[in-house]
Amino acid sequence: MQTKVLLNDKIVEMNQATVSILDRGYQFGDGVYEVIRFYNGEFFELLSHLERFKKSCEEIGIPFHFDLNTLQIDFNNLLKSANFPSGYLYTQITRGTMQRNHLYVHEKNLEPQLVAYTVKEEQRPFENMTNGIKVLLCEDIRWLRCDIKSLNLLGSVMLKNQAASLDAKEAVLHRNGYITEGSATNVFIVKDGKLLTHPANNLILNGITRQVIISIANELDIEVVDEAFTINEFRLAVEAFTSATVSEICPIVKFIENNNEFQIGNGQRGPITEIIQNAYTKKINSESDLFNPNVTRS
Amino acid sequence: MQTKVLLNDKIVEMNQATVSILDRGYQFGDGVYEVIRFYNGEFFELLSHLERFKKSCEEIGIPFHFDLNTLQIDFNNLLKSANFPSGYLYTQITRGTMQRNHLYVHEKNLEPQLVAYTVKEEQRPFENMTNGIKVLLCEDIRWLRCDIKSLNLLGSVMLKNQAASLDAKEAVLHRNGYITEGSATNVFIVKDGKLLTHPANNLILNGITRQVIISIANELDIEVVDEAFTINEFRLAVEAFTSATVSEICPIVKFIENNNEFQIGNGQRGPITEIIQNAYTKKINSESDLFNPNVTRS
Repeated sequence: MQTKVLLNDKIVEMNQATVSILDRGYQFGDGVYEVIRFYNGEFFELLSHLERFKKSCEEIGIPFHFDLNTLQIDFNNLLKSANFPSGYLYTQITRGTMQRNHLYVHEKNLEPQLVAYTVKEEQRPFENMTNGIKVLLCEDIRWLRCDIKSLNLLGSVMLKNQAASLDAKEAVLHRNGYITEGSATNVFIVKDGKLLTHPANNLILNGITRQVIISIANELDIEVVDEAFTINEFRLAVEAFTSATVSEICPIVKFIENNNEFQIGNGQRGPITEIIQNAYTKKINSESDLFNPNVTRS
Repeated sequence: MQTKVLLNDKIVEMNQATVSILDRGYQFGDGVYEVIRFYNGEFFELLSHLERFKKSCEEIGIPFHFDLNTLQIDFNNLLKSANFPSGYLYTQITRGTMQRNHLYVHEKNLEPQLVAYTVKEEQRPFENMTNGIKVLLCEDIRWLRCDIKSLNLLGSVMLKNQAASLDAKEAVLHRNGYITEGSATNVFIVKDGKLLTHPANNLILNGITRQVIISIANELDIEVVDEAFTINEFRLAVEAFTSATVSEICPIVKFIENNNEFQIGNGQRGPITEIIQNAYTKKINSESDLFNPNVTRS
């Protein structure tokens, strides 16, 4: 079965899902996106993603013509048309099609282009969650508006592929001596029993999973310090982990720096990471009703 | 008449020129581009653009399957099919279509997507060349690989539109106290009779027009210092100008900084700028045979 794709208000098959070469997404990366996980037929943190989607549009001056309620309905319809209960929805909005010019036309004439489709992802990443991952430490070469979830992803692509070429699962980035985030994840370390993560300023994307983790930690009385930590604090951390919508919470157990491989803590998932993971799983299960098999679905 | 578009080896009408939403250009800005001027039916500096095109691809790991001679022929055919003698050719190459993942598939399986089409631009920008332009001074928020002419242009787009909102034609950018370049141009100033421009490192695009200007200056015994100059040297410059393929060489006569407007030099095009412009015009005319009306065209 083909994947169904939502193109503004039309649904088409993936092999029919095309856009003009003049779409500004294609010529400028002039757009923003979201990746929204669903488990067991239910979206996880849908509204948070939609609100950030809208905010990203506003940050780059794309008028957000889309009603959040309508989008929720459209996305739920896409989810229902998928023949798998677990996966994620990818969606992006670009400034639309116009004659190529760095200067875009005035907002009133804009027709932004929305794209959305689902991707199957049956399993949560249990192996990485349990055994942890190796990362590459490298310089953050990205722009200074990483708070916008934009389609300008070439820097992240290059860094992630550089990591993969060294058999590392993620690139952990630093700028001016401080760890910012991963190429497609946020990064946390544990120090003195506290969670440290870069503040949500222009240098990182304020991940939805990051926000859920902070909220979970607060509930668990684990102190969260959202202050930038140094490369050396990362190297010496007793625990470290990445967070993202699809890869969830993954312990960082090794890192590569200047072609040498080092261990984080004792090289295994740490206890605080595991506590956070378990609380995250509980939240997923409660929201996706895995513990409520008697709930009737529409 | 519709614009003809080259899509790899096929020519289609613009309204048929579409790509899959899974093209990595659309989802990651994962590609590079060139804008190549033609005057009087002849490309200007075509080979330099093609060589940079190839180099940009290599920098981001897109295999450059295209033969430069074949591209020259293809682009000349596009030019001939246009019903105007002067304009520019826009071309881009993306990593092609694949399931979305920051990790791209191994090179051997890649099918990069080439796009090219022509745009009419009858007149050279005589008014701006003569009367000069006003620019906005602002912080360079772009990534640290500006040497790659990539499709990740959102930073430039935002800065250019910010400039336009203040009635400025270009944004002149600074990083750590030094002028780097414009949002879509290189920047030169005149100091002590010498031309100063940022060195061609990772912080700027080494513009073809920039390179032509340096070569012209050398021929004219005008010394070129390719060392970064400070914001204050820019403010105090006796002359300044931008350079780019389509906007050519434009004197900067005013700049906006912190909502105040200032003058560069005496607020008019300076003598060295004019000498360089004239030599540039001469080069254009000699390459496009305007002074050789007896040359027979194929």
